[in-house]
Amino acid sequence: VSSVDIGYPNDTIGKMKVGDIGEWQLMELIREKLTLSTQDDVLVDVGDDAACVRLKELTLLTTDSYLEEVHFIRSHYNFREIGYRSMAASLSDVAAMGGTPRFALVSLQLPTQTTIDHVEELYAGMQELADRFAFRIVGGDTIRSEKVGIVCTVIGEAKDVIRRRGAAPGDSVMVTGELGSSSLGFLLMVAGLADERTAPFIEVHKRPCPRIVEGRILAGSGVVSAMIDISDGLALDLHHLTTESGVGAEIYLDKLPINKELKRLAPESGKTPEEFILYGGEDYELLFTVPASDVTSVCRDIHDRAQTSVAEIGRITEKKDVVVWRGDEPLPLPRRGYDHFAESQ
Amino acid sequence: VSSVDIGYPNDTIGKMKVGDIGEWQLMELIREKLTLSTQDDVLVDVGDDAACVRLKELTLLTTDSYLEEVHFIRSHYNFREIGYRSMAASLSDVAAMGGTPRFALVSLQLPTQTTIDHVEELYAGMQELADRFAFRIVGGDTIRSEKVGIVCTVIGEAKDVIRRRGAAPGDSVMVTGELGSSSLGFLLMVAGLADERTAPFIEVHKRPCPRIVEGRILAGSGVVSAMIDISDGLALDLHHLTTESGVGAEIYLDKLPINKELKRLAPESGKTPEEFILYGGEDYELLFTVPASDVTSVCRDIHDRAQTSVAEIGRITEKKDVVVWRGDEPLPLPRRGYDHFAESQ
Repeated sequence: VSSVDIGYPNDTIGKMKVGDIGEWQLMELIREKLTLSTQDDVLVDVGDDAACVRLKELTLLTTDSYLEEVHFIRSHYNFREIGYRSMAASLSDVAAMGGTPRFALVSLQLPTQTTIDHVEELYAGMQELADRFAFRIVGGDTIRSEKVGIVCTVIGEAKDVIRRRGAAPGDSVMVTGELGSSSLGFLLMVAGLADERTAPFIEVHKRPCPRIVEGRILAGSGVVSAMIDISDGLALDLHHLTTESGVGAEIYLDKLPINKELKRLAPESGKTPEEFILYGGEDYELLFTVPASDVTSVCRDIHDRAQTSVAEIGRITEKKDVVVWRGDEPLPLPRRGYDHFAESQ
Repeated sequence: VSSVDIGYPNDTIGKMKVGDIGEWQLMELIREKLTLSTQDDVLVDVGDDAACVRLKELTLLTTDSYLEEVHFIRSHYNFREIGYRSMAASLSDVAAMGGTPRFALVSLQLPTQTTIDHVEELYAGMQELADRFAFRIVGGDTIRSEKVGIVCTVIGEAKDVIRRRGAAPGDSVMVTGELGSSSLGFLLMVAGLADERTAPFIEVHKRPCPRIVEGRILAGSGVVSAMIDISDGLALDLHHLTTESGVGAEIYLDKLPINKELKRLAPESGKTPEEFILYGGEDYELLFTVPASDVTSVCRDIHDRAQTSVAEIGRITEKKDVVVWRGDEPLPLPRRGYDHFAESQ
């Protein structure tokens, strides 16, 4: 976190509380934190009635709320992680449409006892993603409240969008990366099991990487028929995709991308690996469908240009059920996700 | 509120609680409520990862939070009024830039005990404004929480924008409509003084009209040098405008547009009329500056095309103070607004 030059030594202002300085000065501080280089696509940013930007292609709009005691418990995350995670969810939505994030608005709900250091950490977490994916935080508002709440609205751009609807019978069902790491990481974190083996999973949970790059490659390929990000778990998000497309799907348990270490660690949390892989949310991987003839080229494309693995896990069916094959046995895949919050009670 | 056709009689579903039906079904209900005619500027709306729209001009982005026990107390408003007021604030920001609202995202925080009827009323209040100003609610999210919270993000368009900065010494300071009605209406409402005389003020407070039409006329005139909406009160918003423009201002108390009935009712609330006119917020009138030579034409334009009164209330000065003339006596105008919430404690 870089220093803030508003006439106070940084260590003094940092310990001040949001309730002490008021909305006006807090906004000035936030304005300082955002790297507001003059760019000709941002005509007005923080500090006027509205931000004003220039967009050239189709405009993507998405918003996600991230509330204390609904989505997270304060003792599990520092403010930087809270900021990062709140922004990552909206970015993943833009990725799932095949778009590029361009601008963001941030609506902050903060207890008056929040320190300025904490506000800066929140923004540092969000700004890290803004820097990585080259978008700008151009506005928002700040409101006192009892609990911490962050609502991130991301404005993206796309030449063409890939929707949840569009999957056709015979299409292959594909997924990027590995599944279940975030939900396993969450359970390990809550259980206090932080060590060398668990660290990578807790890291995936705390700092998931939205698949912006992969989403754009897939949109550019012109062959993806439907796409969604896995925020609620493979099972529930596959149901969302098939319902919107008016089709069914069958997936094969032995084709699901499983991290070997997850297989070893899962029993320690009292659950099977499948529980995390099928129902674990917040991995923010992309689930998409392509005609069978395009599977090889899409896999190569993603691997070559983003160094990300892609697995073919099943196929779209005309029959509207969603089925998971466990060896030779086809079982209905329940329409359910994994409730992080329930686990943390 | 029209009926919702999802297979239940409306009176049954209406009494169901948000906590009973889950996010998925709630989203389907919301989707039904939004008049989603196919328009070629909305490619994707509620129900995919992100909304996708087509914008042609500059893009305006603004967001406003409206939280129970921070901005309002439930017992004072029905859900339709809560929905209306939450959307009006963001619309006023678009008006203050001289823009046209095109799309909105709505992030709802709802206690699990909220009934579906209440959710429909919330949307009916927002949709009323969407219908009046011809914009579309294209997405958002819904989250359970202890208190009701609404975050409205409005995406607007403009050919040219009018900023808070730009006022020059010698410019006339102008304001649309009348001031102080909303804050007086609030106090009368809280005091339980609802009768024929007070009703118009309570109505202005509960259902303020964002000055979208007037803002567009002013932007189109090409002569407005700076503009802001009066959400925090004339005094504080004039300070915002002069600070951003690097100038000062003097205004004349006897030129401020005062409603005669406000003058009579103010004492009953234990305050002077000036208290409401200078420091009362949420009137959502437009405060703007124009060169003195353009005052007459701007006034005529607004009056003819929007049937809205405009008053010249002062002028911009090189000296950076903000002064209010009370007869022959110039007094510093304090940089303070009117805290609705503090009053209601």
